[in-house]
Amino acid sequence: MPSTPPSTKPAVTRNDVARLAGVSTAVVSYVLNGSKPVAPATATKVRDAVAMLGYRPNQAARALRLGSPEMLGIIIPDAQNPFFADLTHEVELAAEERGLALLAANADGSPERERRLVEKFATRRVDGMLLGSTLAVPDLQALMPREMPLVLLNQFDEIPGVGAVGVDLHEGALIGVEHLADHGHRTVGLISGTTAGGTLDPREAGWRTAIERRGLTPGPIVRETFTLPGGHAAGRWLIETGSLPPALFVSSDQLAIGLLLALHEAGLRVPDDVAIVSFDGTRDGEFSWPPLTSVAQPVRPMARAAVAALIDDPAAARRQLFAPALVRRASCGCVPAVSGTGPARR
Amino acid sequence: MPSTPPSTKPAVTRNDVARLAGVSTAVVSYVLNGSKPVAPATATKVRDAVAMLGYRPNQAARALRLGSPEMLGIIIPDAQNPFFADLTHEVELAAEERGLALLAANADGSPERERRLVEKFATRRVDGMLLGSTLAVPDLQALMPREMPLVLLNQFDEIPGVGAVGVDLHEGALIGVEHLADHGHRTVGLISGTTAGGTLDPREAGWRTAIERRGLTPGPIVRETFTLPGGHAAGRWLIETGSLPPALFVSSDQLAIGLLLALHEAGLRVPDDVAIVSFDGTRDGEFSWPPLTSVAQPVRPMARAAVAALIDDPAAARRQLFAPALVRRASCGCVPAVSGTGPARR
Repeated sequence: MPSTPPSTKPAVTRNDVARLAGVSTAVVSYVLNGSKPVAPATATKVRDAVAMLGYRPNQAARALRLGSPEMLGIIIPDAQNPFFADLTHEVELAAEERGLALLAANADGSPERERRLVEKFATRRVDGMLLGSTLAVPDLQALMPREMPLVLLNQFDEIPGVGAVGVDLHEGALIGVEHLADHGHRTVGLISGTTAGGTLDPREAGWRTAIERRGLTPGPIVRETFTLPGGHAAGRWLIETGSLPPALFVSSDQLAIGLLLALHEAGLRVPDDVAIVSFDGTRDGEFSWPPLTSVAQPVRPMARAAVAALIDDPAAARRQLFAPALVRRASCGCVPAVSGTGPARR
Repeated sequence: MPSTPPSTKPAVTRNDVARLAGVSTAVVSYVLNGSKPVAPATATKVRDAVAMLGYRPNQAARALRLGSPEMLGIIIPDAQNPFFADLTHEVELAAEERGLALLAANADGSPERERRLVEKFATRRVDGMLLGSTLAVPDLQALMPREMPLVLLNQFDEIPGVGAVGVDLHEGALIGVEHLADHGHRTVGLISGTTAGGTLDPREAGWRTAIERRGLTPGPIVRETFTLPGGHAAGRWLIETGSLPPALFVSSDQLAIGLLLALHEAGLRVPDDVAIVSFDGTRDGEFSWPPLTSVAQPVRPMARAAVAALIDDPAAARRQLFAPALVRRASCGCVPAVSGTGPARR
């Protein structure tokens, strides 16, 4: 890993914060670490001083506590989404290689719950934290002053001075839509997932780029939550309004599995009536009917990179963006779905 | 909740343990709580004395620490199984109602990893622990002497003096097989899941009871891991050996979804060629194709009961067994799967 520290900020120290807030440096630590209760008015003064000065704790001091680091924490936005279950599991394995256990907490789509969990982790429970935020850009006010090594997961947008790992969502959608174009489809629709912050998903821009680049006709866009029921509802809407396009890029495997149910219920065939490429590359999409062609996130390398960034070089504080890769199965038409009773396909 | 303490043990005290081990009572606490390092030889003496005397810490002292309980821990055997993701989520919601956050850790099928996670939780991280063990009967030697409120989850076997919540697996299989008999099937096979300890799953006994009670012909039994690939492998085996029965009870939704893929790949139809009832009642089974008729575990009531047992009355220390209930969908033939393009079925 590169070890050049970033030179993003002037050297504001804890002394400066203490002086401006009119408290001791110990009190500044209590507030930032949550290690001792401090009167609310005092805490506010400290936080105001931190914000005013743009103070960030010495990056070196944020390295994993010397002595006996033994536990990492991970906060994910939706523990019931198999992608995050897979990601958590890979982080767990990567942590275990370093002799560290992993505790997981679930923000369950709520930025408010996420904030509370960050508090709890930061206070005393873990030696380093991985955060897959419910928001496209998490609340850095709350995160950055803490003296806790932190790496963001599932992070597409670059945030200066913050360690982060993510997948190239724009590129992923581009790959998916171009693959449908390669199958001869001239109209490709989009089922997109919505997020807590309401920001536009980069996969939508990637879909649009591919449409333009290939001179395709844009099909309908449906936005739903990144869930099985969300995908089902999107499919029902497209069917009932008669607007189902011949090809669809779907922003997650969970959305696509929900969509498949709506198509089956209507007696429609995949890929004959509608070809599908989804996103994530989870095991659930491998076992759906038909199996999903999906733009897979490199979950294992991302998990290992995140743990390495946390442990080896928290001072590097940069974002690493990983390239997704197409996994071809039956839903796009690449692989015949039914093999008869002959020898195994897999 | 009942508050009568169980009268299962004579009053062996910490003093007795200290005397036999030749150490102070403080050292006994250090060892049992892991709150301070103790020389290995001393720790062994204390553990031997605990075992010899059958010492259990005062149940009252094991109630959630007074002051500021704020965090519960849950250890589950397989975080990638959606049933455990659902259970964890419901425990999280039940804990949140009590103002407690939940940290989750995954034993990932390994009793050894489970033991290490119990250690870590017990030492200092949480105020109470829920354990869904990888084993049919967890390692009580390791668990019971700890001064930490504990409730077992997913626990079928009764363990005297231990708080536990579980579902009636035997009854669940019985309901499932009898439902297939009600559809007119005279031969019902079984796809069963294997567990770390290698003990026989009570669902297998339930299947057998139903076969006998209804005078059915037992179909083949296939045992595989409780996973999607396990179910797929079981299906391939039944198809390739020509032993696929007209009806199957499948011990988990994940196994059944894997089975569905094998059947689809072979061009077989569900329920026409083979009718299926599975177990768990997860959302994944609601969105599979066809949707699974499944014997559902009452996840929410179980989660609430487990948290209540942990917080309100850890001294009650009894097992609560919940009744599962059949959810009828298409895989058994109760509900037609294809609705055409007409109005919504769901």
